[in-house]
Amino acid sequence: MRRVRTMPKVYIVGAGPGDPELLTLKAVRVLEAADAVLYDDLVSPAVLGFAVRAERIHVGKRGFSHSESQENIHTLLKHTASIYETVVRLKGGDPAILSRVGEEIRFLRSEEIPFEVIPGITAASAMSASMQLPLTCRGISRSILYLTGHSKDGVHLEPLKTISLREQTVIIYMGLNALPDIVQTLINAGNPPSTPIAVIEQISLPGERRLQADLASIEELCSMEGAASPALLVIGDVLREFPAERIADRRQSIESKTDSERHAAGLLSQKAASHA
Amino acid sequence: MRRVRTMPKVYIVGAGPGDPELLTLKAVRVLEAADAVLYDDLVSPAVLGFAVRAERIHVGKRGFSHSESQENIHTLLKHTASIYETVVRLKGGDPAILSRVGEEIRFLRSEEIPFEVIPGITAASAMSASMQLPLTCRGISRSILYLTGHSKDGVHLEPLKTISLREQTVIIYMGLNALPDIVQTLINAGNPPSTPIAVIEQISLPGERRLQADLASIEELCSMEGAASPALLVIGDVLREFPAERIADRRQSIESKTDSERHAAGLLSQKAASHA
Repeated sequence: MRRVRTMPKVYIVGAGPGDPELLTLKAVRVLEAADAVLYDDLVSPAVLGFAVRAERIHVGKRGFSHSESQENIHTLLKHTASIYETVVRLKGGDPAILSRVGEEIRFLRSEEIPFEVIPGITAASAMSASMQLPLTCRGISRSILYLTGHSKDGVHLEPLKTISLREQTVIIYMGLNALPDIVQTLINAGNPPSTPIAVIEQISLPGERRLQADLASIEELCSMEGAASPALLVIGDVLREFPAERIADRRQSIESKTDSERHAAGLLSQKAASHA
Repeated sequence: MRRVRTMPKVYIVGAGPGDPELLTLKAVRVLEAADAVLYDDLVSPAVLGFAVRAERIHVGKRGFSHSESQENIHTLLKHTASIYETVVRLKGGDPAILSRVGEEIRFLRSEEIPFEVIPGITAASAMSASMQLPLTCRGISRSILYLTGHSKDGVHLEPLKTISLREQTVIIYMGLNALPDIVQTLINAGNPPSTPIAVIEQISLPGERRLQADLASIEELCSMEGAASPALLVIGDVLREFPAERIADRRQSIESKTDSERHAAGLLSQKAASHA
């Protein structure tokens, strides 16, 4: 069944936020053709389901000490590219944004392994869509700052030290553990404690949940409600201007997500059949 | 042929940067089912091609005086939702980012017309993928600022006045006309004139082109090469660390884009056939 071997290619693919229907057509095409898929912790099983013929290799990284596992990923990329034609490196969200794709790009270039990057829907865009919350809006916000709440070297709060939230929206990935530092830095920078902030868990998945308060009270709310990682933080006046949808809407939205998953599963089996 | 009328729904859909393969599965599903599509100037014909059964209504806005045409869009949204079941409002890129989706969300809510937002690949993500340029990278950049170079009230440079490009990447949408102001503001804020900057035209399309220089010389390069809008600006040390791919790679990348378009066209006719 093995085809004649041609040049291998590695596709670094953005898996999006979790809902399989938020994959791009290009990502689906490459996943369906993949011989091997190396995937992260945050990639949902439904997304992985498109890789119908691939060897699936979990290379998830958790915690703060990543250098060893990054070496292992490089070794696995090289190994799979040496035996397969189409290798997919599947990363949650969009490879462009806080995904550590740089180290893998450098490695693939140094090894002269051909590769291509396929973008994905980042968590912030999926949150915006799901919550009907534009991240920019005339007269309210004209720029967006994306940053990561944690990193190997600790919390990265430098850009927040001088930020004015006037006409800006701030999105913080993986920020829940650093929430007290984030709030304090923003208030120290002169932003009002009444500035709205929301914490969104499990974006685009059936368990999606939003907690919203202001800088002064968000920690208490998160603690009361038991907010859990992975979560995205969004901060700024857009939250005030576009209030949370009503409960009825939320239910409808969750139902339509279930429909999406059914549809994607149907598409998958239909495509799998056409491959047979 | 008209089905029994049920509740109308408006889908605000991100059309992505132009390559039809960068649409999400969900966007394709909704476009295929659409009775009417209201689309902007920057939506590519190939993307519109998925709307096989829809009335296609161009609502493009150009120039700086948008209020009247925004009123027209609202009137058209209400009118199409009053006669059709599935109306798509198709916007270039991602509705979350600098797309003016807020005004339409407010209108749909005030009219109690049910709607849903479907995210899209924003130009910055497509540029990052196409150029193999991570927007964040450990030790080089840990945050990204997205902003618009023009607006009704003129250039929005406020967040650049105090910015340090150290460990940050800046992405400016529609920034080409404001390039001299942008460069001056960044240098006045203390950033070295040697900071790398790139201008990317027609992202994800066959005519994609990147011009790269530093803050001191980018205006001269753009003028010499005749850079044209729409274009995206990217500024920061990631450009230094991930140099432009070689010419051979570029050609390959353009060929694979043509393949993508052929594939998408194939998919389209196949899907259209299954609708017949």
